[in-house]
Amino acid sequence: MDTSPIAVFDSGMGGLTAVRALFSLFPHENVVYLGDTGRVPYGTRSDKTITRFTSQAFRFLRRFSPKAAVVACGTASTVALSHIDCGGVPVVGVVRPSVRKAAEVTLNNKVGLIATPASVRSGVYPGYMKEIAPHVQMTAHHGRLLVPLAEDGRISQDDPVAVLLIREYMQPFIEQGVDTLILGCTHYPLMAGLMEQALGKGVTLINSGYEAVAALRGRIPRGAVEGKGTHRYYVTDDLESFTRQASLFLGQDISGTVEVASPEE
Amino acid sequence: MDTSPIAVFDSGMGGLTAVRALFSLFPHENVVYLGDTGRVPYGTRSDKTITRFTSQAFRFLRRFSPKAAVVACGTASTVALSHIDCGGVPVVGVVRPSVRKAAEVTLNNKVGLIATPASVRSGVYPGYMKEIAPHVQMTAHHGRLLVPLAEDGRISQDDPVAVLLIREYMQPFIEQGVDTLILGCTHYPLMAGLMEQALGKGVTLINSGYEAVAALRGRIPRGAVEGKGTHRYYVTDDLESFTRQASLFLGQDISGTVEVASPEE
Repeated sequence: MDTSPIAVFDSGMGGLTAVRALFSLFPHENVVYLGDTGRVPYGTRSDKTITRFTSQAFRFLRRFSPKAAVVACGTASTVALSHIDCGGVPVVGVVRPSVRKAAEVTLNNKVGLIATPASVRSGVYPGYMKEIAPHVQMTAHHGRLLVPLAEDGRISQDDPVAVLLIREYMQPFIEQGVDTLILGCTHYPLMAGLMEQALGKGVTLINSGYEAVAALRGRIPRGAVEGKGTHRYYVTDDLESFTRQASLFLGQDISGTVEVASPEE
Repeated sequence: MDTSPIAVFDSGMGGLTAVRALFSLFPHENVVYLGDTGRVPYGTRSDKTITRFTSQAFRFLRRFSPKAAVVACGTASTVALSHIDCGGVPVVGVVRPSVRKAAEVTLNNKVGLIATPASVRSGVYPGYMKEIAPHVQMTAHHGRLLVPLAEDGRISQDDPVAVLLIREYMQPFIEQGVDTLILGCTHYPLMAGLMEQALGKGVTLINSGYEAVAALRGRIPRGAVEGKGTHRYYVTDDLESFTRQASLFLGQDISGTVEVASPEE
């Protein structure tokens, strides 16, 4: 039995989609989350800055001696993961698990990727697809304004701006006829309903945060076998607004478990 | 003659609207600009974080012994300016000059303010209006998604998302019948055309970055009397993309005058 926590890192709130997956797939494990809410978004910054921020985050999370780390931020996974010192901690990012899942479920071998500008620029997703399933064709486009839109809570099918913007971002995938779409940023599952509406029936959406967590199965020493794990959250901006939004998103009140951190120090 | 520079601080690119005003109103003065592009946007963060970032920026800019400083960021002006140590440097923010201008030009005494969520939350604009012109009624609303939209270059009247979003944000000002609208964030003048289109004729837009610079007239010791001043730019993210975008915006190539800074150190 190893009760050391699973660490989750994200640039902001999006990584909570991975935390939700941890609740359902690893209910007994302890979790420590770092959301860099004071510097979100990462996806429009340069590779150098993204790598610096991610490296600071890892230095912070290593203090908790985690048994494994999930990089739940698509941008950090694509741009920074191969450049940072993980200190021997087993790490999963969102890229490989979601590409493997997409290769497995596509029937027509046409897969789409929507991700941040930095992730698309990196070419990491199509590069890995080429390695494991060269017969699958991947179309990659950024959804640059989706993170600010999601962080503004504009994810409803009654929001005309959200509907119009998502229709625009989905258009190239419709034209390519993809049957599978990787949501390469962990904010995007919040808008899955809008994307499905724009894409029409028959397109499978891959939740990259969920796939990253699922990839831990069988790869980490088991924690407690019963009882709910404890969860601690760290953010780099205001804890009140994170606590409120995260409690809503996770469907449970996390007051008292959130603290402010300064990973850059 | 005092050739020490005028310092300009902004969270990102928006402060270049103030630099453009410096070019026309103070062509002989030296200018040093800091754009915190690695941590933009400020307007959606907490007051504490905004104050910390602004305070670091001032510590950095004071190294240049400026004769004056322009806080060209609406969010920093409203939230942080009264809490930071300016080290004896005369400072103008965007609030007071633009409120004075609005009070001067309004004919029906109905003024609108569009600004970031943090600026609107601060109540600083209506507070100052009440002080200097209590008969003027001010309606304040945030334009939360306008900074990411502008930073994505989506400012054209042919962009349906930009048109729809700006129409939404202008609606309360139309309903209130304002004849003057303060653009309380220095990114917003980039979208003045779209705003004018949505508002219809007869509404005067106040460019807060321009008004801040204009407020320096007669208040600073004169620099060189002829010759163009030198300009230096510091950013906290990638210098290439800033150089390219700023050169376009300023209508002159600024290559070789941009450097990367780390004000948080």
